Amino acid sequence: MSDIARTPEPPYYAVIFSSHRTEGDNGYGEMADRMLELAARQPGFLGVESVREGLGITVSYWDSLESISEWKRNTEHREAQRLGRKKWYSNFRVRVAKIEREYGI
Amino acid sequence: MSDIARTPEPPYYAVIFSSHRTEGDNGYGEMADRMLELAARQPGFLGVESVREGLGITVSYWDSLESISEWKRNTEHREAQRLGRKKWYSNFRVRVAKIEREYGI
Repeated sequence: MSDIARTPEPPYYAVIFSSHRTEGDNGYGEMADRMLELAARQPGFLGVESVREGLGITVSYWDSLESISEWKRNTEHREAQRLGRKKWYSNFRVRVAKIEREYGI
Repeated sequence: MSDIARTPEPPYYAVIFSSHRTEGDNGYGEMADRMLELAARQPGFLGVESVREGLGITVSYWDSLESISEWKRNTEHREAQRLGRKKWYSNFRVRVAKIEREYGI
């Protein structure tokens, strides 16, 4: 189970990835695990929260827009993006955001 | 089931609400439905995506920081926030973000 990310004082950045999956696994589970592992090793990665219940929402947190761009250009990640568009997702939106305020319990 | 929100061209704003629930319903389900209904009627509301699988992630989208502040000050919502801290959530983070880029399939 995904946990709440421990992020630093804002400002920092987030990628909100909202998606619907196609039917069947088709290698998706393995790729998703691998991408989480790979993202966590990227420079500037701050944390991730991920949930699916029909709709999937994955929010990854980053120290800068440059770190997000580098992750987007990662070779293995590019291949996952290609397969995602081709066979894993029936629909998705990616939103890149600047976190301006944060509070909690 | 929640769907992917149809949001306008950026920039616009998002509230990312990540939470863990306490045990038992204790009126939570009814309140959650009511808050979605109420938020959707607020000025500046653009859409919402909500998923729970242990961790819950709800992302609501707004046209401005002012609309987010007004929603936060809504009387019924304030009471829900109070009860949320007191009994519904064991942990939560609220992150207010400016959406700068968006793309999808």
